[in-house]
Amino acid sequence: MANKQIPYKIYLDENEMPKAWYNLRADMKNKPAPLLNPDTLQPMTAEELSGVFCAELARQEVDEDTAYFDIPQEILDFYKMYRPAPLVRAYCLEEKLQTPAKIYYKFEGNNTSGSHKLNSAIAQAYYAKKQGLRGVTTETGAGQWGTALSMACAYLGLDCKVYMVKCSYEQKPFRREVMRTYGASVTPSPSMETQVGRKILAEHPGTTGSLGCAISEAVETAVNTEGYRYVLGSVLNQVMLHQSVIGLEAKAAMDKYGVKPDVIIGCAGGGSNLGGLIAPFMGEKLRGEADYRFIAVEPASCPSLTRGVYAYDYCDTGMVCPLAKMYTLGSGFIPSASHAGGLRYHGMSPILSKLYDDGLMEAVSVKQTEVFEAAERFARVEGILPAPESSHAIKVAMDEALRCKETGEEKTILFGLTGTGYFDMMSYEKFHDGKMSDYIPTDEELAAAVAKLPTI
Amino acid sequence: MANKQIPYKIYLDENEMPKAWYNLRADMKNKPAPLLNPDTLQPMTAEELSGVFCAELARQEVDEDTAYFDIPQEILDFYKMYRPAPLVRAYCLEEKLQTPAKIYYKFEGNNTSGSHKLNSAIAQAYYAKKQGLRGVTTETGAGQWGTALSMACAYLGLDCKVYMVKCSYEQKPFRREVMRTYGASVTPSPSMETQVGRKILAEHPGTTGSLGCAISEAVETAVNTEGYRYVLGSVLNQVMLHQSVIGLEAKAAMDKYGVKPDVIIGCAGGGSNLGGLIAPFMGEKLRGEADYRFIAVEPASCPSLTRGVYAYDYCDTGMVCPLAKMYTLGSGFIPSASHAGGLRYHGMSPILSKLYDDGLMEAVSVKQTEVFEAAERFARVEGILPAPESSHAIKVAMDEALRCKETGEEKTILFGLTGTGYFDMMSYEKFHDGKMSDYIPTDEELAAAVAKLPTI
Repeated sequence: MANKQIPYKIYLDENEMPKAWYNLRADMKNKPAPLLNPDTLQPMTAEELSGVFCAELARQEVDEDTAYFDIPQEILDFYKMYRPAPLVRAYCLEEKLQTPAKIYYKFEGNNTSGSHKLNSAIAQAYYAKKQGLRGVTTETGAGQWGTALSMACAYLGLDCKVYMVKCSYEQKPFRREVMRTYGASVTPSPSMETQVGRKILAEHPGTTGSLGCAISEAVETAVNTEGYRYVLGSVLNQVMLHQSVIGLEAKAAMDKYGVKPDVIIGCAGGGSNLGGLIAPFMGEKLRGEADYRFIAVEPASCPSLTRGVYAYDYCDTGMVCPLAKMYTLGSGFIPSASHAGGLRYHGMSPILSKLYDDGLMEAVSVKQTEVFEAAERFARVEGILPAPESSHAIKVAMDEALRCKETGEEKTILFGLTGTGYFDMMSYEKFHDGKMSDYIPTDEELAAAVAKLPTI
Repeated sequence: MANKQIPYKIYLDENEMPKAWYNLRADMKNKPAPLLNPDTLQPMTAEELSGVFCAELARQEVDEDTAYFDIPQEILDFYKMYRPAPLVRAYCLEEKLQTPAKIYYKFEGNNTSGSHKLNSAIAQAYYAKKQGLRGVTTETGAGQWGTALSMACAYLGLDCKVYMVKCSYEQKPFRREVMRTYGASVTPSPSMETQVGRKILAEHPGTTGSLGCAISEAVETAVNTEGYRYVLGSVLNQVMLHQSVIGLEAKAAMDKYGVKPDVIIGCAGGGSNLGGLIAPFMGEKLRGEADYRFIAVEPASCPSLTRGVYAYDYCDTGMVCPLAKMYTLGSGFIPSASHAGGLRYHGMSPILSKLYDDGLMEAVSVKQTEVFEAAERFARVEGILPAPESSHAIKVAMDEALRCKETGEEKTILFGLTGTGYFDMMSYEKFHDGKMSDYIPTDEELAAAVAKLPTI
């Protein structure tokens, strides 16, 4: 395997890092539908959004025309602590699979948050700080996003208040301690601190919480606390914008070696990683400069693209946030308790939803036991222990590579390895012990959740 | 902080990676004392050692003359999965401390094992495989070394049998699951599988095990199983040899930018990281080509260099392994249960012990609460969540930098950041909750353990 022209890991130089984020919407002829005000059902303006989000982030949220946003120097400096992230040529995996395909992955797990979430966390924290705010609030489930945000806030000296779904708070104390190490205040949700929390606790005294409830508590606290705003780690247009740094770096690294991917694969929950990874490639496709296949991979237990509907829906269970037009399973949909890891959001980024609806992107769903099989196989040959989320992309990339083995095609495959699984060992344990199930929602269950969609 | 000439992270190109390990003993005029056969008290030959270790590793263990050992291509290929490791310029920490010192750290945690241990694990597994062996055995405490070895064995298709101290096996199930993901068999020690295990269980039915007992079980199994050998992650000369890749890379990266460290700092338990980091720099010092200060940092709760004696002692509690002349607290010494993380070995690498005894290296001990304070401070500005072990070096590097602030000296400080603390969050939790104590052994305790040293 020695002396290959393309190294195992391509690291850009720091001066080759992207200096601007790319706003894919600027190249979309068919724009994604706007967010709607839940009271008026009219498109939200930046001004309306700025009660919840920082002013600059609200502006980024609604801007469909500006193709590039300069990355502020302070954010670039922070990025340099863990970026450029490597683009890895998976020589060992290729050899193991005996495939003629060439496999690359963009690895975003080489930072303490363990995932790509940090790319947007630092941006959102920066604009909050710049606006003179005291702090931000957010929710977290398993804790990846909360960790990233606490790191960014520690760096900038900003308060960080995280509502962590109570069952995760109790069952995943390690993520909680990482957040505390970075100075964040972590509250199990539902809590007695908010009106919505007290209401839920009164109605369901023994509840272990849900992401929907944690969102509502975080938003309520942000809106009612002087000098605070709410921040979110996925779904939003602003998040896709910040995450474009993944795709821009991946493309720059491939261009440097004259490599062009045939197919680009990413896992998709709310869409933050996939949207970022594909952005510059999709831009070329939209402008007619190149063609690529794009594949979104989602869990069979939470299949918003492959089995959801394209409609306006609430972004949160509490129905206090704006409405978004997206592929959705209904805001009341909750994945089976047997589902491991993230990718459990009921909807999908409005940008990605539009691209998918326009036939510019494919989507597949995979079962979690086959995801963990792929994860373990990958770990043993490539070294990295992948997050369950990322392993959805690994599974489909391996399937593509094995298809190439059958057909003899020398396709170039690029996938996003969003993070590491160090805090997911309980799920790996279930898998090792044969206790992992593959529950897939029935048509009736999905129909019941979709039936409750708002009629707009 | 923008546009600094020296980047935040210096990554060598893959073709700049060291092609040979450096054997510091070749440049030592005063050689470390040889290992002694516990039965004859005569120096162990490579042949004698090859009953326990692979033949090539036994040869490396006793070779005092060969300065460079070529790294086999297969190991170089494996190294490329996670090396070159970055040399980081700690701009953010410097700014936070407001110090004129220039701080660099060699970060070895960017791999799934989470530490530098992988550098020697792959080498030891490779020679075992090359010799046609079926598998290797080892012991592990917290699990860092066991994880590294299981990764290396998975890659090479070698069986890996790990005896994990029972209390760690039960209290740290996540490390165990990482090893299982890599296909290792993990047995809580003491076990009923070995003679020594059964004996200990009969005498102490409720025992939760110790590293010394796990070593004995691993050695017994290796010696009694066809096609198996025993491997060890620290202390040994062969391990220092493999770990020299840390220092060689660090020096190459510094040379590339014309930077020369004034002081080099590393944490020290058995010495694997420190020995590797300082090797090429110490070589220059020994040859009279350059001068550097070297500082070994050890826990005040297990102070083998600063409070131990330089004498022949057993390497294991069971007294079945060879004797080594080293700084030791006595093979019966067990650090207080309140001690968090690794660096809990009773002795110190014979090479480092000799250098220290000859006055070529300094040593200091630090208390664990101040170590965790430094760790948290570091994490918040540099992003990386450090392992408790590595944080010993962070603490002393920060002290040095703060001294420079007082004196105005622009010293260049290099320290080893050996790994990440993702699996140490229980210790961080104790620290956050104010439940961490700073137990330091009394003179009487130390004298009692030293009194039991063999008389040689």
